[in-house]
Amino acid sequence: MSTVQRIQFYTAPYSPYSHRVRLALDEAGADYLAYEFPNTRTKPDWYYQINPRGRIPSIAYGGPDVPPEEPSPESAKLTESLALIEFIADIFPDSGLLPKDPILRAKARGFIQIYDSWIQPPYKSAFFLGEGTEPILQAIEKLQAALPPTGFAIGQYSIADIAVAPFFVRMLLFLRHGIGAYSQADGDRLREAFASEKFARFRQYVQDLESRPSFQKNWDEAQQVELWKSPPKFRKE
Amino acid sequence: MSTVQRIQFYTAPYSPYSHRVRLALDEAGADYLAYEFPNTRTKPDWYYQINPRGRIPSIAYGGPDVPPEEPSPESAKLTESLALIEFIADIFPDSGLLPKDPILRAKARGFIQIYDSWIQPPYKSAFFLGEGTEPILQAIEKLQAALPPTGFAIGQYSIADIAVAPFFVRMLLFLRHGIGAYSQADGDRLREAFASEKFARFRQYVQDLESRPSFQKNWDEAQQVELWKSPPKFRKE
Ligand SMILES: [Ca+2]
Repeated sequence: MSTVQRIQFYTAPYSPYSHRVRLALDEAGADYLAYEFPNTRTKPDWYYQINPRGRIPSIAYGGPDVPPEEPSPESAKLTESLALIEFIADIFPDSGLLPKDPILRAKARGFIQIYDSWIQPPYKSAFFLGEGTEPILQAIEKLQAALPPTGFAIGQYSIADIAVAPFFVRMLLFLRHGIGAYSQADGDRLREAFASEKFARFRQYVQDLESRPSFQKNWDEAQQVELWKSPPKFRKE
Repeated sequence: MSTVQRIQFYTAPYSPYSHRVRLALDEAGADYLAYEFPNTRTKPDWYYQINPRGRIPSIAYGGPDVPPEEPSPESAKLTESLALIEFIADIFPDSGLLPKDPILRAKARGFIQIYDSWIQPPYKSAFFLGEGTEPILQAIEKLQAALPPTGFAIGQYSIADIAVAPFFVRMLLFLRHGIGAYSQADGDRLREAFASEKFARFRQYVQDLESRPSFQKNWDEAQQVELWKSPPKFRKE
């Protein structure tokens, strides 16, 4: 493995996608420079040199020691959170972010895809569009069934857990603080469900994700509530 | 690298997700057993032992030589197409499915995520729900901008191309044969756009994907037209 090069990480505190990458960097014990965007969706022009699609997170990897707002053409511009956490696992092969066994690696990646294709759309429907609770509860039941009886997604902590932690911890935080596009009745339904025996395994899993030192290191619940309460991210029915 | 074990692949000819996995297996020159499901969405009970969510594709890896309908508890049950193509790249490290360079690996995975998060939703809107053409055209422009001037997504052929080929080749086939939920006018708009100079790079890319020997090996255009024409997969407005 060649030496790890300069890591300039572009992020924002509200962003669960960025949060994935920070967790991976911190788990790996990486040295990195973080540039934090404020809580807005518009990006300055210079950022399009790093990500032509304008989204965070991204990493400028390698190249000379330049200010974050003046990216060098010599650095590699890397984008998309799932690609970035795999990248961090690749450049820190001894971090344990991904095990060496190809079967366990496939299980970790399969878990991420179960989240991405089964949970993400109904999560959006329930919390951001206020379109009802049944689909997200069914989806979380499926994901819960894919978990082992105890521990993390594939037993040991891995990118599988990193990919889902920022979303699940926010989901339960939104419910505790009544943040989201769901109706009062739907909020009650979700809170009741997640407090029930049926979702005990899921609840324990999210608690384990939140307790992880790399998670605690950068998690500020009061700040998150503030960030998500104020901007019009949620569309009420 | 340990020896590659028995690969029992569960697939169906209509399924672009399954098609990804077949392309990866054929590119790697893998020996595998394919079990083909007919063109239906329901699966027999035994299949839920392999994928509790019932979807294809999947791979039963290792274990004894059993009939595909009687999966052994000793095989690893692997699901989710993107996890499976990474798995094939892992167990065939010399296949070139993924380069060794972590930056190129991140570029390949980033390209897949650009497809997944930018193209997949408007593709569905335009072709399966008949909700208009502007979003899919804008998304393909973005993806086209992420391509190098010639060649494949990261230059050499990789899982990045394998992830998108089954979808893009079907998209252009649907248009040629008027298959989909789009209106007559929207179909004309899409055909005109993809024939224009603006999308020349995209057109060349899809032609390169389709010309790949591993693609040609299992592609039967007449069969695809038949499969996609008959069942009620498309919801007209
Ligand atoms: Ca997705």
